[in-house]
Amino acid sequence: MLEKKVISKLRKILGQKAVLTAREDLNAYSYDGTTTWVHMPDVVVLPTTAEQVSQVLKLANDNKVPVTPRGAGTNVSGGSIPIKGGIVLCTTRMNKILDINKTNLTATVEPGVVLQDFNIALARQGLFYPPDPQSFLGCTIGGTIAENAGGPYCVKYGVTKQYVLGLEVVLANGYIMQLGGVTVKNRTGYELMMLFTGSEGTLGVITRITLRLMPLPPANKTMMAIFDDMAVGGQAVSSIMASGVVPAKIEFVDNFVIRRIEEMTPMGLPVEAKALLLIQADGSPAAVEAEAKQIVDILKKSGAKEIKVAKNANEAARYWKMRSAGFAAVFSAAHTVLAEDVAVPRDKLAEFIRKLEDISKKSGFFISYLGHAGDGNLHPSIFTDIRNKKEFDKAQKTMGEIFEAALALGGVLSGEHGIGLEKQRFLKRAMDPVALNLMIKIKGILDPNHILNPGKIWEEEKV
Amino acid sequence: MLEKKVISKLRKILGQKAVLTAREDLNAYSYDGTTTWVHMPDVVVLPTTAEQVSQVLKLANDNKVPVTPRGAGTNVSGGSIPIKGGIVLCTTRMNKILDINKTNLTATVEPGVVLQDFNIALARQGLFYPPDPQSFLGCTIGGTIAENAGGPYCVKYGVTKQYVLGLEVVLANGYIMQLGGVTVKNRTGYELMMLFTGSEGTLGVITRITLRLMPLPPANKTMMAIFDDMAVGGQAVSSIMASGVVPAKIEFVDNFVIRRIEEMTPMGLPVEAKALLLIQADGSPAAVEAEAKQIVDILKKSGAKEIKVAKNANEAARYWKMRSAGFAAVFSAAHTVLAEDVAVPRDKLAEFIRKLEDISKKSGFFISYLGHAGDGNLHPSIFTDIRNKKEFDKAQKTMGEIFEAALALGGVLSGEHGIGLEKQRFLKRAMDPVALNLMIKIKGILDPNHILNPGKIWEEEKV
Repeated sequence: MLEKKVISKLRKILGQKAVLTAREDLNAYSYDGTTTWVHMPDVVVLPTTAEQVSQVLKLANDNKVPVTPRGAGTNVSGGSIPIKGGIVLCTTRMNKILDINKTNLTATVEPGVVLQDFNIALARQGLFYPPDPQSFLGCTIGGTIAENAGGPYCVKYGVTKQYVLGLEVVLANGYIMQLGGVTVKNRTGYELMMLFTGSEGTLGVITRITLRLMPLPPANKTMMAIFDDMAVGGQAVSSIMASGVVPAKIEFVDNFVIRRIEEMTPMGLPVEAKALLLIQADGSPAAVEAEAKQIVDILKKSGAKEIKVAKNANEAARYWKMRSAGFAAVFSAAHTVLAEDVAVPRDKLAEFIRKLEDISKKSGFFISYLGHAGDGNLHPSIFTDIRNKKEFDKAQKTMGEIFEAALALGGVLSGEHGIGLEKQRFLKRAMDPVALNLMIKIKGILDPNHILNPGKIWEEEKV
Repeated sequence: MLEKKVISKLRKILGQKAVLTAREDLNAYSYDGTTTWVHMPDVVVLPTTAEQVSQVLKLANDNKVPVTPRGAGTNVSGGSIPIKGGIVLCTTRMNKILDINKTNLTATVEPGVVLQDFNIALARQGLFYPPDPQSFLGCTIGGTIAENAGGPYCVKYGVTKQYVLGLEVVLANGYIMQLGGVTVKNRTGYELMMLFTGSEGTLGVITRITLRLMPLPPANKTMMAIFDDMAVGGQAVSSIMASGVVPAKIEFVDNFVIRRIEEMTPMGLPVEAKALLLIQADGSPAAVEAEAKQIVDILKKSGAKEIKVAKNANEAARYWKMRSAGFAAVFSAAHTVLAEDVAVPRDKLAEFIRKLEDISKKSGFFISYLGHAGDGNLHPSIFTDIRNKKEFDKAQKTMGEIFEAALALGGVLSGEHGIGLEKQRFLKRAMDPVALNLMIKIKGILDPNHILNPGKIWEEEKV
């Protein structure tokens, strides 16, 4: 439990209204997008300036109080759970878009700006920021940087780190450090900014972000393809990627997700389909026409049972709404959902799906999946109940098998969600031990008292 | 001078023919693409395996012998000069393309593969690796990773680090560390790979690289625009970037370079032009037609005196040959050439050019420039003679003014060449002091004896 004098100092730094201690307030910051982790913080602070963040961290560092940085808490690996209690430092009130520069194709924002609000502001000026985690309606940009978030658009446009040009980061000792700038090229020393993209709040608190933008593609077209067999759908993805066309998005949804969404919000989805691919081409109108035709041809040859090309923006939006509702549909299907985030090489997707089918049969667990097929990044989910220890343990063991299957195909533990709490027990299997040790040493330089998001990414040695 | 027993141990590790000690051999490894730096190594080793690299580094580390990793030595910031003597570890014999995977859109290579050889192998399969430093005919892929190289294609496609998916790196103590993998998304822990992209050989020796590829764009079109005023040309670049079209390349060449190339290899260039923009659109044939039309319209409105659209691949190749000959043209123009590599925000390009004109007038130094205008990345060059101390000092002072002018516009010290020896005296002005200190601490973790490329990036304190 936090000392009263620390809380009273926090109130001095931030003002009464920006320091929450009531149980019902703390509750709201005790969980994130996962269904497995809950832990109460002692206090929640809502700073509005980097200077306040600096003073909070200095105070916490002097008193060795854990600080868990948090955006909107939409992450799905347990990264924003205050597992050691202490302070939750929530950036949602630092939500100003500071600059959008159409000629330089850059924008500077505070970390608490909601991704969707940013996208709307950009679209008004004909601009585009591609990384699109499917929590875009709520997630904060700071959170997407700390997690190096992905999303459907990453097939063509790459992940979050590829758009970060400049960061202001407050270090554990309160120092406000400037990294990078507003130029698209910068070779001034080591790529230190890239340590913070994907650091999951363990190395510093991001307080300002400069991002590279693109012009909004003038046209796009969405296609839906239905398959009788999931692995055949996976093979179709490989064929598209090998054909020379790069769609903006290639998403994969299984029968369970289709049915579940249709139950929740009927939108006339093909509930009998074993698997469904959603594909979007974008670019100039002429290029989109040509690419869409090429994609439809490949889908036909790949054994798609049915192919629908969205006739207009409304129809396309309906398809994509289904996809973005996918995670909610999965997470609301059981008391506890273990959602993996493995990625395999794109040419191993069909093989991986077959292996998942085997694991499901053997374990008896139904496995649902959706994901970013164009990146080989699937989210296999197991439905279980954490209150039933025996079943939960078995579910975790099955998750381990899924992970081993991905690794055996040259895959990785996490494609875009990060490690957080959810995947840390697998980390040693997934990383070179010297690289893991290097991470811990870098953490030691930047946060010697281990106050920043302690207990995350790697397992503390169980003494 | 290196102890004889170290050299004899190197011979044991590598064999006689892979250890060079003759003066005429060492000479060839005493300089790089700069004209200001020369230093003889004591010995040059040419390993062919990561295991050999590991044994060399272990031996060097045990004996505290400096090791300067080197690819083809084409870099232009002094990064591969063995400024402290010792061992030059040259990777040019590790030159195998290990895998090209068309479906996964990845390739795995050894560090000594020449970029042009790689591009030729990829083109045969309809594949494309965008980063294109203009030393592509000779530079090695390992060198481009260690320098995080840029090039003309980066306007549309981004810099080298955005393509690195996996690295094998030999650490100073000889440990062979594996980072990343072959998937396009990977969120397993911190982005440690990004420490090595741009590390300029100071953190480890890269021995294997997995890169993300793209399909070769099916069509492209090259345009040349001639301007009476350099800043007007710079403004045209801003107008193109703000218009919503993203050309693959936008290059800038000044009158000096045009004349110099025409003197060396007459190719009918417009020798009266004050500035010349070379622009390439790429993508599907229909998209390229549409984009080229849009670009030509903007160029006309921006005050271009003449616009030529290359009628065929030969004509386009001729234009691009001029651009890639640019650096050679500049570097052969004087005994010593100080070539800056500043980048400014893209909307500040015209203003920066005006400032360069002022600096030239005031200092009396003629400044030539060419560069990647689409990225705001220019290479202003001053012609001088290092043997004339007074003039050379004045040239260096003028370089400092150019750098200050770029910084004042929100620019950076290096867009793509790195710091090496050439720009280290400016580093303190260009970086947050705590970030600089963080770099040095990370170096201390990975290379506690400071054997790897010592004396580079930051200045050692002059005690």
